[in-house]
Amino acid sequence: MEFSSKLLENAVYEMSQLPGIGKRTALRLVLHLLKQPEERTELLAHALLKLKSEVNFCKNCHNISDTEVCEICANPKRDETLVCVVEDIRDVMAIENTSQYNGLYHVLGGKISPMEGVGPQDLNIASLVKKVRDGTIKELILALSSTMEGDTTNFYIYKQLEGLEVTTSTIARGISVGDELEYADEVTLGRSIINRVPFESSMKAN
Amino acid sequence: MEFSSKLLENAVYEMSQLPGIGKRTALRLVLHLLKQPEERTELLAHALLKLKSEVNFCKNCHNISDTEVCEICANPKRDETLVCVVEDIRDVMAIENTSQYNGLYHVLGGKISPMEGVGPQDLNIASLVKKVRDGTIKELILALSSTMEGDTTNFYIYKQLEGLEVTTSTIARGISVGDELEYADEVTLGRSIINRVPFESSMKAN
Repeated sequence: MEFSSKLLENAVYEMSQLPGIGKRTALRLVLHLLKQPEERTELLAHALLKLKSEVNFCKNCHNISDTEVCEICANPKRDETLVCVVEDIRDVMAIENTSQYNGLYHVLGGKISPMEGVGPQDLNIASLVKKVRDGTIKELILALSSTMEGDTTNFYIYKQLEGLEVTTSTIARGISVGDELEYADEVTLGRSIINRVPFESSMKAN
Repeated sequence: MEFSSKLLENAVYEMSQLPGIGKRTALRLVLHLLKQPEERTELLAHALLKLKSEVNFCKNCHNISDTEVCEICANPKRDETLVCVVEDIRDVMAIENTSQYNGLYHVLGGKISPMEGVGPQDLNIASLVKKVRDGTIKELILALSSTMEGDTTNFYIYKQLEGLEVTTSTIARGISVGDELEYADEVTLGRSIINRVPFESSMKAN
């Protein structure tokens, strides 16, 4: 792509560094900003800079928060003996959306992935083990995605907790509510048969 | 979507104001920036701000340019009697890519679109008419997209030029090179039959 302006080329290059944004999309976004009033660009740029420089993570669960301890951790109505371990804050938002969970969270900040150079020391695992050792947590729900990296991370955490008094569980895998059995992949369908639940408890959930 | 942080919510909101970027994508992009070193965000923000505040449009053709007159207009080898009228600078880049055009450009900056509140006075049409009136231009190629807005704009420009000594042409519409006839829409196929070209001249183009 040949640009008639270095300034434009530079802006497009930086925009195209974002994941899923190619050069063409980046050019479209940058030209859109050029057509908008100057405030739009300033608002965007300053919102990003402010977030990056002032962002704060809850010192308890590592969720993004404007306060030292996030609203969830600070809420006395939540069950502090139950902790759900998730990969990132999008998972917290997704679970909060269900209104089915009343415990706390622990945000790891990623998954162990040797391919991408992410080891256990890059994640918030040590602080999780320390929290468990301190003793208030009774159950830990490992809610990482069921990929190889997710499984590795689950297993690593499980190993770290050996000998400590805590129940570990993982979220149920199975056919999505509303999905047809015939289109489900066999691994998921197999798991949903092995981990079948009493009919009465499935009634209660609805 | 419920955010645990106002700073995050604000950054996601500003990002989602870009065309084609929804809230979920915006969140993904912002979280990506948060994981990257601080320079990434700064480079992006400053590139956008610098472009917006220092952007310059060629005083002749309104293409984005770092110099007062863009490289194309300043090139003495280009044919200044031939001007191609396009919607925006992406069209200039696309035509330049073909290496088949040796004239100059005139970037309108959009199309007449009453639905979006864009009238002739919002586009670089007056300066085009003035350029034609000044007399060096012999042929004007109207290369706007063949939508209702494009056709309206073409017609408006055509009307403005009435009585002036200039040939107006438009780019050929037809079946794309390599496309199968049976899958072409009938309007395009119809136009390509009406505007058929001598076989010898189609040989020359290859």
